[in-house]
Amino acid sequence: MDYRIIETKARVLADNDAAAARNRQTMRQSGAVLVNLMGSPGAGKTSTLKQLIARLGTKYRIGVMEADVDSDVDAKAIAATGTRVIQLHTAGLCHMDADMTARGLDAMGADGLDLIFLENIGNLVCPAEFEIGADLRLMLLSVPEGDDKPLKYPLMFQVSDVLLVNKIDTLPVFDFDFDALRNRVFALNPKMTVLPVSAKSGEGFDAVADLIAALLDERGATA
Amino acid sequence: MDYRIIETKARVLADNDAAAARNRQTMRQSGAVLVNLMGSPGAGKTSTLKQLIARLGTKYRIGVMEADVDSDVDAKAIAATGTRVIQLHTAGLCHMDADMTARGLDAMGADGLDLIFLENIGNLVCPAEFEIGADLRLMLLSVPEGDDKPLKYPLMFQVSDVLLVNKIDTLPVFDFDFDALRNRVFALNPKMTVLPVSAKSGEGFDAVADLIAALLDERGATA
Repeated sequence: MDYRIIETKARVLADNDAAAARNRQTMRQSGAVLVNLMGSPGAGKTSTLKQLIARLGTKYRIGVMEADVDSDVDAKAIAATGTRVIQLHTAGLCHMDADMTARGLDAMGADGLDLIFLENIGNLVCPAEFEIGADLRLMLLSVPEGDDKPLKYPLMFQVSDVLLVNKIDTLPVFDFDFDALRNRVFALNPKMTVLPVSAKSGEGFDAVADLIAALLDERGATA
Repeated sequence: MDYRIIETKARVLADNDAAAARNRQTMRQSGAVLVNLMGSPGAGKTSTLKQLIARLGTKYRIGVMEADVDSDVDAKAIAATGTRVIQLHTAGLCHMDADMTARGLDAMGADGLDLIFLENIGNLVCPAEFEIGADLRLMLLSVPEGDDKPLKYPLMFQVSDVLLVNKIDTLPVFDFDFDALRNRVFALNPKMTVLPVSAKSGEGFDAVADLIAALLDERGATA
């Protein structure tokens, strides 16, 4: 609705796509897999990372980039697991772009890592528009957010490869129709993998870890 | 971290502040009160509006502007209450700015209304930066999102006048420390009014309605 902003955005997005392509090349050369973890504030992104680190950290060398507008709460939580982690501050911006991601990879030191997670800013709008060059776009939706989110934030569901439906243990206390959610998701993105999980209990995370391990093995085979 | 984006943002924000000042003047002339309702996706913004309409709609003439990236789910829900409502689409943008708000007020027809709600895009980052010229900035945080959100999205807590802590009925199933939340909020914004509510059961909404009615009476007295 504001022409000036949208024009600016188009140029920014074109620059971003070029930077994302460079990141993809960097990843291919290093043999590492880059996962872009996205979801609303409080959807459970950091707890999800802890569940995945517990399952994949003994076999693979993992690095985590924690992106936040401010604070280092999440980086502290990940550092406590003994995983290599850096905190990126976006200075008010609502997403990580590909160029910031490249700087993050440089700062963390991606060499020698097999698997790198970017925990994006908690937001269902902006991160969907800024491709970072990830091998896997992992989206988190938590049950308390509601089953109507694909109707309201369609792009995020269109650009993601895997949807984790988190806090599945709270289904009894919310009006959440899992079948309605699936139908809405598949209408937007027929290829989406939808997996129910609980980052609190760990339920469902073996399947997520298997999926990521398969991607790593595939990358290892072609590297 | 990306200089070009931030430079653009500074100019956009300056333009926005000027438009917000115009909106404030429009509101003062019309005698209506404008409320900017902000919160994460799924925090319960639309359900909150329904609770407030049920309490204030018999005494005051209410209008609602539903802002979404896409879809008209929320406008339908509000229209079902018999309230005047329009749906605004931001075409991918993660917030409503003051100019879009002015167009929304024009399109809806603000004349003859006492109380106008803007339901902003579900997002804790961008809407905090774009002042729309509201008389009341009403923020919603839901219990499932976690008590650490002030640490991660400080600006939203700094710019808001009232914080509704929603889904308070789900406290038993989440690790949510209400006192820790309060301390974090007051450290950022000592003047914040913090009210626990449940948009599902209606608990706590009488106090919220009283607070808004007081603002309306004050405006009526000076109009």
